[in-house]
Amino acid sequence: MEFMTGVKQKETLELPALLAMAQEGEQVKVHGTVHTIRDMGEVAFVVLRKRDGLLQCVYEEGVTKFDIKDLKEESAIEVTGKLFKEERAPQGIEIRIEEIRVLSEPAEPLPLAVSKWKLNTSLEAKLNMRPISLRNLQERAKFRIQEGIVRGFRDFLYSQGFTEIHTPKIGAKSAEGGSNLFRLDYFHRPAVLQQSPQLYKQMMVGVFERVFETGPVFRAEKHNTKRHLNEYTSLDFEMGYIDSFEDLMAMETGFLQYMLALLEKEYKKELDILKVTLPKADHIPAVRFDKAKELVAEKYNRKIRNPFDLEPEEEALIGRYFKEEYDADFVFITYYPSKKRPFYAMDDPADSRFTLSFDLLFDGLEITTGGQRIHDYNMLLAKLKARGMTEEGLEQYLDTFKHGMPPHGGLGIGLERLTMKLLGEENVRETTLFPRDLSRLEP
Amino acid sequence: MEFMTGVKQKETLELPALLAMAQEGEQVKVHGTVHTIRDMGEVAFVVLRKRDGLLQCVYEEGVTKFDIKDLKEESAIEVTGKLFKEERAPQGIEIRIEEIRVLSEPAEPLPLAVSKWKLNTSLEAKLNMRPISLRNLQERAKFRIQEGIVRGFRDFLYSQGFTEIHTPKIGAKSAEGGSNLFRLDYFHRPAVLQQSPQLYKQMMVGVFERVFETGPVFRAEKHNTKRHLNEYTSLDFEMGYIDSFEDLMAMETGFLQYMLALLEKEYKKELDILKVTLPKADHIPAVRFDKAKELVAEKYNRKIRNPFDLEPEEEALIGRYFKEEYDADFVFITYYPSKKRPFYAMDDPADSRFTLSFDLLFDGLEITTGGQRIHDYNMLLAKLKARGMTEEGLEQYLDTFKHGMPPHGGLGIGLERLTMKLLGEENVRETTLFPRDLSRLEP
Repeated sequence: MEFMTGVKQKETLELPALLAMAQEGEQVKVHGTVHTIRDMGEVAFVVLRKRDGLLQCVYEEGVTKFDIKDLKEESAIEVTGKLFKEERAPQGIEIRIEEIRVLSEPAEPLPLAVSKWKLNTSLEAKLNMRPISLRNLQERAKFRIQEGIVRGFRDFLYSQGFTEIHTPKIGAKSAEGGSNLFRLDYFHRPAVLQQSPQLYKQMMVGVFERVFETGPVFRAEKHNTKRHLNEYTSLDFEMGYIDSFEDLMAMETGFLQYMLALLEKEYKKELDILKVTLPKADHIPAVRFDKAKELVAEKYNRKIRNPFDLEPEEEALIGRYFKEEYDADFVFITYYPSKKRPFYAMDDPADSRFTLSFDLLFDGLEITTGGQRIHDYNMLLAKLKARGMTEEGLEQYLDTFKHGMPPHGGLGIGLERLTMKLLGEENVRETTLFPRDLSRLEP
Repeated sequence: MEFMTGVKQKETLELPALLAMAQEGEQVKVHGTVHTIRDMGEVAFVVLRKRDGLLQCVYEEGVTKFDIKDLKEESAIEVTGKLFKEERAPQGIEIRIEEIRVLSEPAEPLPLAVSKWKLNTSLEAKLNMRPISLRNLQERAKFRIQEGIVRGFRDFLYSQGFTEIHTPKIGAKSAEGGSNLFRLDYFHRPAVLQQSPQLYKQMMVGVFERVFETGPVFRAEKHNTKRHLNEYTSLDFEMGYIDSFEDLMAMETGFLQYMLALLEKEYKKELDILKVTLPKADHIPAVRFDKAKELVAEKYNRKIRNPFDLEPEEEALIGRYFKEEYDADFVFITYYPSKKRPFYAMDDPADSRFTLSFDLLFDGLEITTGGQRIHDYNMLLAKLKARGMTEEGLEQYLDTFKHGMPPHGGLGIGLERLTMKLLGEENVRETTLFPRDLSRLEP
């Protein structure tokens, strides 16, 4: 009988192991994809793309037992050779090739020059050929950084006593209702895809006190803008026993600080590839919705058209104002108008036209919506009634409150938007692995 | 201007902080939900449910400034008092209450006795009242352990050079095709919910070499069994440059070992609550599909009806066989018949009726399907043709191979099933937060 006893040590070495080798001329074996071949006659540079970066290998006629003419870009190969220091090579090392073993070959050359430093093509073309265009190091680096954001979110929240949950994406009813729902047939019953884990995460506050989820949400919105997606990854948390909604903003600030430090520490290589300077989150201003509108109207000489709404240009100007006045990359806008918030939002007891809620703007774009929720059963029923909503489909949600719930609140962060702003991109599709929008359902 | 500078330290203390206090009689403040009240006249025990466990608080008439008659179970309260050691109390400590502040009250008493050690009700009732039934400590503990499994999966794979990805759940076409797809209208175009991130994770091997995803998958299967769900959380990974599919089994074994050690270390409290003894994964037997059938037929005197299929009872018997003969909780079944595997599975070059693939059985139940995939473009085209499948909808997937892909393979683990088996449960719904099955779409 054969037995599995744990991870198999590979014979081929990864970049960190190669870089840690002190001895010059050591015999090594590596694998990788042929990123480029620069053939100069008797010598050729074969640059391998590995998961941690590029590795220069040198082919020498007569020394390397292989005909360089038979080597294709994007082939997967295994190289045996000797490791040397070489300052001009990508990592300061190179391998002088003795043998090449081809593991796999492409059937056709690439339609894009992915080995160029900057991929010189339209967003449309990049998205159409996503599995190819992402082989470019800059394109790939964006999604490594996205990994770091999610990882930072989870690790920070674990450390703060949150429990991770997995809530269903198919349901009979959704959080906010309305028309922007994808509908499907569920064994001959009407069903929807969840716009948000909102109702589930609230219900779980009564169980775990603090919960989070990182998962897909679905919005059938007919927006076709640079900042909207019809499916995106939402970073959600919900926490009980808050003293006020400021606890939520403080927690989000803590997350941003932790995540930025993690990126600086573990994703430095990718930040360098993209020449990204990380924003500061040590000191995030919080300003009332109405006050923010006033400040911007005054400084930029704008008229306030609707005191209960924030236009995208106004958001951008608020971002600019706080950058100019406070050197702030982030700003919390607090006390959003009740009309703009869903039924479960807690109204401000001092002025019910506003709610105990907030948005977080990053460089003038909303990346988070959050706030305190109603925890009192009767207050919730009254709010539903005042909005002309029925209890239908909300039975279990309402029962949760009937049987007791602590004061609580939470927020949701759009992962792709946060990544976009962090990387200074202009279109959220640049930082979405496989975007879904009005026209894009493939690949 | 107000500024957010990071996580706010709460005045109320959590269990770890209370347990770390050396001094007897220290003044403390805590919050929590009233789990039970045991009123004995002049003294009452008020047990608080906190996120880390139970905390005994003692009400004394004349000492506590509150009338115990006004306190309801499931109220959220804040308690001020003095901390003492008390061996008979849940954590060996208790708080003698001076003041009680009620933060929130239920409108009605609970329909279930959640404070009982074992929740004495049917699965059906538990699921109907999920947000309530999970307030029971045993029920809650299951999902803490589920968190540990996912956390172990991610942390282990990060350490092995994997990149986390987020692939779309709405698509034009799905991985395996077939009839078990949920269909929806996507802005007047037909779309499906993904059964698996299979095609996406494969495409990303050409980019990141090693990738993983933890997310929902959707199966419109009309099964109504104890082990099927129509939506579940899949733990998927895919890795390039494998030498054989044994690398995948070795990696999964490494994950199981890491995850079990993590549970032992960080989720001991929950394991104790559920009296779970963790299985062993240091030494997992791997046996060929045909050989396993023979062993079981011989030992348990069964006839082999179909040499290319494995019935659920046969799976269970294989589990029993390896438990009896090797004291093994897990067993890999290798070289599955080609007919039972999708088009992208790599056939065994030595016998194309079988594939270079495997299932992992845990206590006689399949919790993983994995294997090596075809990485050669022409071989993939030939396989599609042999199956009578068209390239339609697979264009970008096939293009990825046309432009070069390393040898690779991967696997998918059903999170809820793995949790079920780990906890010795009989029904996968017991370890699913909000199950979706043929009849259940709510809550």
